[in-house]
Amino acid sequence: MKKKELKIVTIGGGSSYTPELIEGYIKRKDELPIKEIWLVDIEDGREKLEIVGAMAQRMVKAAGLDWKVYLTLDRREALKDADFVSTQFRVGLLDARIKDERIPLSHGILGQETNGAGGMFKAFRTIPVILDIIKDMKELCPNAWLVNFTNPSGMVTEAAIKHGGWDRTVGLCNVPIGAMRTAEQVLEATEKELTFKFAGLNHFHWHRVWDNEGNERTKEVLQKVYDPNSTIEVDEVKNIKKTPFNYEQLLDLGIIPCAYHRYYYISDDMLNHSLEDFSKGETRAEVVKKTEAELFELYKDPKLDYKPEQLTKRGGTHYSDAACELIASIYNDKKTNMVVSTKNNGAIDDLPYDSIVEVTSTITASGPIPLNWGKFEPGARGMVQIMKAMEELTIEAAITGDYNKALHAFTINPLVPSGKIAKELLDEMLIAHKKHLPQFAEKIKEIENR
Amino acid sequence: MKKKELKIVTIGGGSSYTPELIEGYIKRKDELPIKEIWLVDIEDGREKLEIVGAMAQRMVKAAGLDWKVYLTLDRREALKDADFVSTQFRVGLLDARIKDERIPLSHGILGQETNGAGGMFKAFRTIPVILDIIKDMKELCPNAWLVNFTNPSGMVTEAAIKHGGWDRTVGLCNVPIGAMRTAEQVLEATEKELTFKFAGLNHFHWHRVWDNEGNERTKEVLQKVYDPNSTIEVDEVKNIKKTPFNYEQLLDLGIIPCAYHRYYYISDDMLNHSLEDFSKGETRAEVVKKTEAELFELYKDPKLDYKPEQLTKRGGTHYSDAACELIASIYNDKKTNMVVSTKNNGAIDDLPYDSIVEVTSTITASGPIPLNWGKFEPGARGMVQIMKAMEELTIEAAITGDYNKALHAFTINPLVPSGKIAKELLDEMLIAHKKHLPQFAEKIKEIENR
Amino acid sequence: MKKKELKIVTIGGGSSYTPELIEGYIKRKDELPIKEIWLVDIEDGREKLEIVGAMAQRMVKAAGLDWKVYLTLDRREALKDADFVSTQFRVGLLDARIKDERIPLSHGILGQETNGAGGMFKAFRTIPVILDIIKDMKELCPNAWLVNFTNPSGMVTEAAIKHGGWDRTVGLCNVPIGAMRTAEQVLEATEKELTFKFAGLNHFHWHRVWDNEGNERTKEVLQKVYDPNSTIEVDEVKNIKKTPFNYEQLLDLGIIPCAYHRYYYISDDMLNHSLEDFSKGETRAEVVKKTEAELFELYKDPKLDYKPEQLTKRGGTHYSDAACELIASIYNDKKTNMVVSTKNNGAIDDLPYDSIVEVTSTITASGPIPLNWGKFEPGARGMVQIMKAMEELTIEAAITGDYNKALHAFTINPLVPSGKIAKELLDEMLIAHKKHLPQFAEKIKEIENR
Amino acid sequence: MKKKELKIVTIGGGSSYTPELIEGYIKRKDELPIKEIWLVDIEDGREKLEIVGAMAQRMVKAAGLDWKVYLTLDRREALKDADFVSTQFRVGLLDARIKDERIPLSHGILGQETNGAGGMFKAFRTIPVILDIIKDMKELCPNAWLVNFTNPSGMVTEAAIKHGGWDRTVGLCNVPIGAMRTAEQVLEATEKELTFKFAGLNHFHWHRVWDNEGNERTKEVLQKVYDPNSTIEVDEVKNIKKTPFNYEQLLDLGIIPCAYHRYYYISDDMLNHSLEDFSKGETRAEVVKKTEAELFELYKDPKLDYKPEQLTKRGGTHYSDAACELIASIYNDKKTNMVVSTKNNGAIDDLPYDSIVEVTSTITASGPIPLNWGKFEPGARGMVQIMKAMEELTIEAAITGDYNKALHAFTINPLVPSGKIAKELLDEMLIAHKKHLPQFAEKIKEIENR
Repeated sequence: MKKKELKIVTIGGGSSYTPELIEGYIKRKDELPIKEIWLVDIEDGREKLEIVGAMAQRMVKAAGLDWKVYLTLDRREALKDADFVSTQFRVGLLDARIKDERIPLSHGILGQETNGAGGMFKAFRTIPVILDIIKDMKELCPNAWLVNFTNPSGMVTEAAIKHGGWDRTVGLCNVPIGAMRTAEQVLEATEKELTFKFAGLNHFHWHRVWDNEGNERTKEVLQKVYDPNSTIEVDEVKNIKKTPFNYEQLLDLGIIPCAYHRYYYISDDMLNHSLEDFSKGETRAEVVKKTEAELFELYKDPKLDYKPEQLTKRGGTHYSDAACELIASIYNDKKTNMVVSTKNNGAIDDLPYDSIVEVTSTITASGPIPLNWGKFEPGARGMVQIMKAMEELTIEAAITGDYNKALHAFTINPLVPSGKIAKELLDEMLIAHKKHLPQFAEKIKEIENR
Repeated sequence: MKKKELKIVTIGGGSSYTPELIEGYIKRKDELPIKEIWLVDIEDGREKLEIVGAMAQRMVKAAGLDWKVYLTLDRREALKDADFVSTQFRVGLLDARIKDERIPLSHGILGQETNGAGGMFKAFRTIPVILDIIKDMKELCPNAWLVNFTNPSGMVTEAAIKHGGWDRTVGLCNVPIGAMRTAEQVLEATEKELTFKFAGLNHFHWHRVWDNEGNERTKEVLQKVYDPNSTIEVDEVKNIKKTPFNYEQLLDLGIIPCAYHRYYYISDDMLNHSLEDFSKGETRAEVVKKTEAELFELYKDPKLDYKPEQLTKRGGTHYSDAACELIASIYNDKKTNMVVSTKNNGAIDDLPYDSIVEVTSTITASGPIPLNWGKFEPGARGMVQIMKAMEELTIEAAITGDYNKALHAFTINPLVPSGKIAKELLDEMLIAHKKHLPQFAEKIKEIENR
Repeated sequence: MKKKELKIVTIGGGSSYTPELIEGYIKRKDELPIKEIWLVDIEDGREKLEIVGAMAQRMVKAAGLDWKVYLTLDRREALKDADFVSTQFRVGLLDARIKDERIPLSHGILGQETNGAGGMFKAFRTIPVILDIIKDMKELCPNAWLVNFTNPSGMVTEAAIKHGGWDRTVGLCNVPIGAMRTAEQVLEATEKELTFKFAGLNHFHWHRVWDNEGNERTKEVLQKVYDPNSTIEVDEVKNIKKTPFNYEQLLDLGIIPCAYHRYYYISDDMLNHSLEDFSKGETRAEVVKKTEAELFELYKDPKLDYKPEQLTKRGGTHYSDAACELIASIYNDKKTNMVVSTKNNGAIDDLPYDSIVEVTSTITASGPIPLNWGKFEPGARGMVQIMKAMEELTIEAAITGDYNKALHAFTINPLVPSGKIAKELLDEMLIAHKKHLPQFAEKIKEIENR
Repeated sequence: MKKKELKIVTIGGGSSYTPELIEGYIKRKDELPIKEIWLVDIEDGREKLEIVGAMAQRMVKAAGLDWKVYLTLDRREALKDADFVSTQFRVGLLDARIKDERIPLSHGILGQETNGAGGMFKAFRTIPVILDIIKDMKELCPNAWLVNFTNPSGMVTEAAIKHGGWDRTVGLCNVPIGAMRTAEQVLEATEKELTFKFAGLNHFHWHRVWDNEGNERTKEVLQKVYDPNSTIEVDEVKNIKKTPFNYEQLLDLGIIPCAYHRYYYISDDMLNHSLEDFSKGETRAEVVKKTEAELFELYKDPKLDYKPEQLTKRGGTHYSDAACELIASIYNDKKTNMVVSTKNNGAIDDLPYDSIVEVTSTITASGPIPLNWGKFEPGARGMVQIMKAMEELTIEAAITGDYNKALHAFTINPLVPSGKIAKELLDEMLIAHKKHLPQFAEKIKEIENR
């Protein structure tokens, strides 16, 4: 069965991440018979697209490849007959993220750009756009795979599959890869020597690990990484402070949390750090904005034709691994095990059958097949269930513009205090983001006129 | 089938509630062929037992009944051949509750004596005692029913049934009765004219209501009780401030919350009120302590032979309804519908099959049969699931004295902030309650010696 | 809340059962402010309708009531503004049932007019008609309740609710009432003194029973009714031979089967009886046809104005109890416990959430609320699950006319042997019933032309 | 992590299959650092053990390997410090199987040595022995893996894991491998080019297949293998006649049945074939007995040091693939995908969480991880559920010797007619096998004395 040549499209192609993606494709040139790469962006991102697009073209050329790299603002032209569409766009750009983080913090509340109030607003802005893209895909490239990186990746993927009806969507994230690297480091083993099982939601998953003699090593990882008496230094996700968990709680948990669990398991401590950053104008969004500006300065250099070292600081490590490896695995039916956001179908017994979960899956040409996880113990079970409920309410609010539902989502999100303050925060953020929230337009007007 | 005469035992018989219980039995004298009432207490409660016991004897006499009312500190003597055992004891008395409320508040955290940090400590103190009582019951009255009022009533009932193996336990609470009265008031209907379905956990349930023409009136109750523009004044649970919910959130919820949901749906506002009370030395526990002292002064009056008006203020309204009606319903196989804590067995699809839930049930001679509830919508589903998980961890910690599990329970409880503060609070409360927490003795010593 | 006067419609009003129904209404005249009773039938049933309709009018008159009894062939006129619609029609009349029973028996196979090959064909004929009736009801009486007696009652009810979207449907059957009478008889107790819990599917349910002292008496009923050494004689469903079960199997089952379980638990013995009847031309359908002819002779008597004794032989005992009591319970919000076919919603944990089950339910003005049943033990669980699967396939085949699905339903039905014989039987029955199976028309033509 | 040298034990080592197993080990000599192979049998099998054991030693020697092949009747000596224990014993030898098949057929009933009455009696004889072996293993080789081939493999594995508490058990069967070969043949693809998902129970599973371009090819396999108009000739399981399915039913099924489904989907046709074989003294057991005798004649040849061609006829093709590959995969943490009997844990949503299912799994050093399957469509769902229920009853009857439960299992098994005949058959088989059914001893005596 001879395979056709590939057209790969990246929406949000003007992102600073693009060089890493290109590097990933180049690394897999023998697996991926790429013909065309299309980088799509919107008018507001035109300049960035041109800078990073030119750089992408240089990288491809330097690699001695004949791939065509197209830059365009015409999404429909790009989507036509695409094989893979990856999405890494950011509605409202980093300025929106700054609001996502700073407005909550101005009330003494964590913004948390993926699952907190900030992440919920990112969902409100992003989900209508992803459903729009899917509408185009149904028409223009009905067999393409949608590889989603746009955060909140789990909610966006659930919207795409459950509400958009696009089954060929896979959600991705680099956090699990980082977690695997950490385990490999502390167990002094290679990836091949270990077996991982991840389960949960995007930015809210846990994992277990076994060695190649069949021994579970989960507790040992917990001890080496999180015991305050451990002397081992580990690298972790760039954008989360390495604030210590309560080790005793992790011992009862018995499985390894992800870096983002800090926001839930040690909320108070995370809030204190964030308030400090806030007061210094150094929220994660602000830092990233600065880093990005620097990156784009670098990218402008017409001699730069490889991914610069500095991109690593951006927090995107393992990005190319996840994205390109997924595409290569689907295309080549590699049956690689990867951690992806995909349909639950009972893989995690505690969560709704039709919801999207993040789970170790075997990647085949027909998509991911989750390794069965089974049930969680009560502690993790309760947490993942309230988060899934929050996700469901958020997604529905994003689609319908239902204010009551948005407030309900705020109310049950463990990162948002409930009460009058929740409503005030919601209202303030609706107004701040109104340009990108057409579905809430009427309600916003009502709030403004109060 | 002629029924035998009854021996009814109340553990914690020295409680200020006892007169209401006695009043309830008297009201049902034609349904309940009582022979003996045994009021049991411990040495620390001897004085109260004597005061309230004497009053109970006067009440029975004034009613012209030949029931024997026994007062005793010997629990085993009382349990011998009992038919019904009701539990309303408070380990550590009201002083413990004061600590449950004031210690968290001293850190700016809600104590909440049923499901918050305070309630969890009440569970830690109470569950070992209830399991002890069950051990006695297995030996001394193997056919008796255990009617539990001791808070946190849901967790205590789950411990009794799931861990103690005493299936003939029913948990009770007066909150649902209050909620029914409210609905009847705003719908201008009698209880008989309405159909209620309650489901959830103790102090964490929701309900729906229909009229006798088959129309669901749930939304109307929500509107009349909670719409800020509603002009209807309703009575509610005494011990919870009538702080307004966010009405828009309730509209999305679509079912009627219980009074205690305020702690979760408007935590911030509830905290502010509580901090005010705290600063004035008027936490609920302190107010109750004062009320109780006044009540016992009244009870001392050898001429008082009826329940005094003032008891109503204590927060125990509907108490006798719930307790005595349950006993009468079991004894007479009345098939009354009541809201009780009982085994789920799938009545609420979203919660573990073997867990205890609070749900409208038909009360038969063989115990409660839940009316099937089905599934919750996401918002309520996620909340009830995290609360059940918190309950499970708390119960297990109460039984095993496992500090890690206790900390995990604190971590996931939405009312307790997580992080360093959670551990500090846990440690401080363990030390404060150490007299009543033998299962944690070793850990407490370790904390003290740190 | 003053209730309106009632318009009650019976589709298949020309049935020989109608007098019992009328008797039931008359008995409940104080509960049911009936204004109009409409008896509807089709052209083929005109004569019967006129006979039984005239008799119904005499009965009402004799009772001194001013109810109007209308006879009509115009279903839409009858449905207009109806409050309750009961369905007891038989597509193809008794001649179709004779085919349902005799064709399978001619191959040495049980026909079984409810769940066997015969019942499946009855479903094929009936379900399109019930969906048609619902279409009319949506237009003409959108608030009416549909009370379904037409067999196979469970499948017809599932079609009405799940596929027709008519939630206000309740399925009824007289089998559970008979089973309750039997238990009352052998336990020497009144209905009020016992608590029953039924669960399963129509003509495929089991039950447990408790007395008013809370003791489960299930095993005692099993022993008294089914132990070969028991000397107690019990009445049972008229249309099923009292062939003995294997008592040892029932002991392991531990719950009480319904009379129809004989077809599954002692298939071979039931087949032998049926083959005997078949050879004598005395299949149940043939016997009923004769009885009916006799009944209609009686009904013609212009002096007969009460339900004649002979109707009891027809197999319809308890019919009026079930039908009229259900209507009275809904209308008056009586909260009676009855066994009905209604939405599962998790009441029986082992069956699909959205499927129809037959289960003890509290009947309110807004419909039945199932008492929660929980899980079955493996033996009953497996049986009820394969029957539900067979029902689902049968219903879908009835709606779509999908031959492959019909064959699949035949294949998994425990009463139909699988293999070539299944296909032969299916084909023969399709041809025999072709007049009433428009949805299979094309396939039937193909079979005929083979 | 250096791996230790292996001690592999085969219980039932005197089986005619042993040469294939040895061949499998030899083929994997580079993956498996075998030190000792122990072939264990019982006194009755001593002669066979010596013949086949000598042959095994010749094979190893011919391969130039220094592995020690021990023959013993002392199971405990063999188990001491074993790493892998495979079980392929047959309690009562082939004569018992002849009874399993011939007694039912003498009543006109399928015996079916895996899931029919015959298979159930094989479970009755085998399960107590496997639990005994596990008792020894707990003491003598607590870290060993139990690889079970003894039929009924699914029930024996469920007994070992759920009742014996030996989690390190994996059940195996060669049927799925045959099915994969068939699909590969008709799709003209290699195993690597296809993705299979199997799910169900042992000898009662279905599968789906996709190619390496992501297209599902399931329907195509159904068509090519089962369409009566298909011209493709496929090889299938030796011991099942290639009687044609009803193709239309398979089309509705939509997934590929296993060869054994013929017993359920075309029971009548299978029965007819079996009755023919029965009348000629050529039931499968009798044929196998003859083949085995011939094989042992061959094995006696001191020059034979390789697996003879004739073994293939025995029905054991793919045997070594399954067994040795599983051992190699566990030992080397190969993450191969294989179809095994293992704990469900929710992989198949429709079956009990703690039951054993046969499902495609990734084989790691810590055992199999099932690929998540999800839900079945109604037709397959109902069938697999009744078979699982039958398995559960059979296993419990095998352990407890509970006659009522055994009769209940017979009653619900779709291959056994219910009624008097079921009891007669059960009684006759109990007596016939009494030597190997100590758990039923008392009941058997009672039957004999009737």
